[in-house]
This record gives sequence, structure tokens and C-alpha cells, in this order.
Amino acid sequence: MRTLGATLESVEPGFCSISLVPRPEVAQQHGYVHAGVIAAIADSAGGYAGYTLFPRDASVLTVEYKLNLLSPAAGERLVAEGQVIKSGRTLVITRGEVHAEQGGDRTLVAVMQQTLMVMHGMDDYAVPRNSQE
Amino acid sequence: MRTLGATLESVEPGFCSISLVPRPEVAQQHGYVHAGVIAAIADSAGGYAGYTLFPRDASVLTVEYKLNLLSPAAGERLVAEGQVIKSGRTLVITRGEVHAEQGGDRTLVAVMQQTLMVMHGMDDYAVPRNSQE
Amino acid sequence: MRTLGATLESVEPGFCSISLVPRPEVAQQHGYVHAGVIAAIADSAGGYAGYTLFPRDASVLTVEYKLNLLSPAAGERLVAEGQVIKSGRTLVITRGEVHAEQGGDRTLVAVMQQTLMVMHGMDDYAVPRNSQE
Amino acid sequence: MRTLGATLESVEPGFCSISLVPRPEVAQQHGYVHAGVIAAIADSAGGYAGYTLFPRDASVLTVEYKLNLLSPAAGERLVAEGQVIKSGRTLVITRGEVHAEQGGDRTLVAVMQQTLMVMHGMDDYAVPRNSQE
Repeated sequence: MRTLGATLESVEPGFCSISLVPRPEVAQQHGYVHAGVIAAIADSAGGYAGYTLFPRDASVLTVEYKLNLLSPAAGERLVAEGQVIKSGRTLVITRGEVHAEQGGDRTLVAVMQQTLMVMHGMDDYAVPRNSQE
Repeated sequence: MRTLGATLESVEPGFCSISLVPRPEVAQQHGYVHAGVIAAIADSAGGYAGYTLFPRDASVLTVEYKLNLLSPAAGERLVAEGQVIKSGRTLVITRGEVHAEQGGDRTLVAVMQQTLMVMHGMDDYAVPRNSQE
Repeated sequence: MRTLGATLESVEPGFCSISLVPRPEVAQQHGYVHAGVIAAIADSAGGYAGYTLFPRDASVLTVEYKLNLLSPAAGERLVAEGQVIKSGRTLVITRGEVHAEQGGDRTLVAVMQQTLMVMHGMDDYAVPRNSQE
Repeated sequence: MRTLGATLESVEPGFCSISLVPRPEVAQQHGYVHAGVIAAIADSAGGYAGYTLFPRDASVLTVEYKLNLLSPAAGERLVAEGQVIKSGRTLVITRGEVHAEQGGDRTLVAVMQQTLMVMHGMDDYAVPRNSQE
């Protein structure tokens, strides 16, 4: 995430948002942010959202996700939001949205549906579990 | 793709492979290549594979994809392969695989199923359509 | 849908809900409603939701969907809801949810993300476009 | 599966095929086999394919799948094939294809990518694990 220049905006139980200010390095041939970057911040937002509900000693693994790209990702800032839909002992399902912000307007640029796996006994994340920590 | 350090290996009608030699910048917290990078090369390999079958004046757009992450992506080299499954006038469906190579061994690290859209009258890709060009 | 015993509950612009009272014929080996039935009502709810926003002469085609099965589908009634997320000229993206109802309680049993295609000049649906018709 | 009139054709380690002779009850408004039926036989073929590799005391659960519908499903017979791509201790990933057969020709009508969960200690399937049984 550091390579991308992404910022962890908000972490609450079952929710996470990540922002990114587009730079030339993350653009594709038309000047829009590359789909791989959209995918990375959506995947990460979903992953952290799930992680907030995991037991203390557990780590998170993305099993799979599906991403629909809806609009070109251009603007001053991208914001990816991940939300837990169902939290199980082994698997956690999330939904994600990526919005592009420009001059006060928000455009939905991608939606994601994701399956995470709880890796018990493997906590190794460097991020705080919630914004109070 | 240049930012990632990826290389277009092979482009044939309905097929494309892209390789990447992992560098520290594309790694996540465990030293493996980040899922966003896996997604980017799989998505691009599928997109180019579809593009090889498009009419001369058409561009390619990824509508959506689903990616399953199967194994940690570690090794000397990653190779993403995209293959067209069904080529229609408006939509093209591809399958993708990403393999990690290490000392002659190959491990399947991700599989993808992707929907592309043919953007007629919008050719703007800088890549050759096939390896003879 | 008739074979399944499903009922069109509500059709509004960009939204559709379909209900189904489980019968033995649609159950799998544990007595729960079969995943294929869950998929069918979720797919149909999304398809009708998209169809409400189509031009008069257009028909709907499901390009693809992804379905996560969250909980066993048991209860007095299943309700599938489809909601348009993005409506384009050629493609429409929807989200779907299937809930199981039992004694006033609702359990989320499946979530879907779906891509529809607008088939211009091919209107042939027998359903009303909105509840006023 | 019995309600649909589907037949288990072949079960080998990591593979399963299921056939269905279309009847009016499983058709949608154009006379083609309904997408829900396509989904049901693809999902089941993938699930049985995974189940063949499970330990003796384990049952199978579909976590999620993504299905692309490629062509109208018409013909004398539909054949769904499921193939295990990756078999883990907890999760199994499969790919599926559904073909329509007509007069010796085969048309690919759908492709699927699926995630299964191994339910240890919950064997309850009535189908044989391989064709030798």
C-alpha cells in the first residue's frame, strides 16, 4: 500500500476505508488510475474490514474477489470502502466500493464482492484493529 | 505495466502471456507479491488476449473479473497467461492463470475469469496485435 | 419462475423483489432450498431490476454473476431483491440479496453481483416494467 | 438434481460430469434452458468434483461461484463438467463448463469458477466418491 501511496482513512468494526491520491505512476494508457490499483485498494479495504472482526491471534487471507469496473477512475482522490456482510468462524464475506472524488462530487468507479479466510494463530498485521488503538 | 516491471512475453490470436520478476516494491507484508499486482498482470494478460481478436479500430475495456488466489506468489518469476474462451461482437470472455516459477518448478498462484468489452472505433493501444508485428 | 413457484413481489425503477415459498421439490439433501433455486431467484430479481431501466424496445440478458452462499436457505419464505448499481447504454450492473424469513426474522442467505446486457430492439418480456402497469 | 432430471455421468478423482436432457419445465421465456438450471448443474458438477478428493468423513459446501453465460442453452443434451484446480485442506477451487450437444456438435454455453469448503466430520452425501464404488 505504501508503494501505491494509499492511506488508511478509517477503521471501525466491520468497516475500513482507504484513500489514494492518483499519481502518474499508477495511471494506465488513458491517464486514469490503473484497474490493478483500484483492485488493490478495494481488496485491502475489504481485508482490513474483515480483520477488525477476527480474533486477536488471527490473520487475514483473501480467498477470492470479483470486481466490476464501472467508470474511469479519475479525480483528485479515490476512496475504497470495505464492509463485512457476513462474518463466520472460517470465512468472512465483504462488499467493497471505490469512489472517485472531484470538486465535491463522488462517482462510483468499482464494486467488489470478496471472500476472506480467517487464519487462526497467525496474527502478523501491522495495522491497528480499530481507530481507538 | 511499466511501473510494475512487467514484460509482454507472447501475444498470439486469443492468447497473451505477461511475466514479472518480483521486486521489493511489489511485495506485501510477508514478502510475497501483492495480490493487486497478481490481479494487474492477470487482468492485462486477459485484456491483451481479447484485444488480439478485436477489429482494427477497436479498443478493450475490462468489464469485470473474478480472481481466486490459490497460493502465495513467491519465486524468481511470475507468468500470467490470458486465453479467450468466447469472442462475441460486444463482449469477450477470457480465463487467466498466474504461475510462479522457481528453479524449473511452476506453481499455480491464481485463476481468473474475466469479461471484456469491445470498444468499437476507439483503437488506442500501443501494443502490437500479434507477435509478427 | 413458474416451475419454481416464485412470485414477483415488487417492481420499481431499478429494483425488483421475488419471493418463493419453499417446497420439497426445490430442496437439496439437507432439506434446505437448493443453491440453484437461490441463484435463479437472485438472477431473475437482478435481471428485472435492470430491465425496468431499459428502453421500451430492449430485452435483458444475464452476462454473468457471482453468488456467495452465506447460510442455509430455510424458512417460511425466501425473498430475493435485485438493485441496479450502475446503468449504462449496453451494460447494467446490479447487486442482489436473498433473505430467508422465519417467524418475523430475516436471515441473509446469499449475496450476488451481476452484469446484464441491454439487448436493443428485442423486447419480449412478459412482465410489466413497473408496478403501475 | 432429481427434480431437474439431471444424471451423474462420470465421477473421477477431481472430476465430475452431469448431463441433462432439456424438458419444457426447465425452459425460460425463449425456450432455452433457464440460467438457474445451468447454474445448478455447473455448481453440482464442481461440488462433486471437489468431493471426490475430500477425506472420508467430510461433506462439501459451495462458498461461492461466478458463472458466465456465453450462448443460449439449447440442444438435445446439456453436459456440465467440473474440474478441481486446487485442493486445499479447507478450501477447494474448481472450474466448470457447460456444453450443449446437438447432432454431434458441442457448444460451450457457460463457464464457472467456484470455491468449495471442506466440512470435516460431516459426511452425508448419497453419491459414490468414484466410479468404482
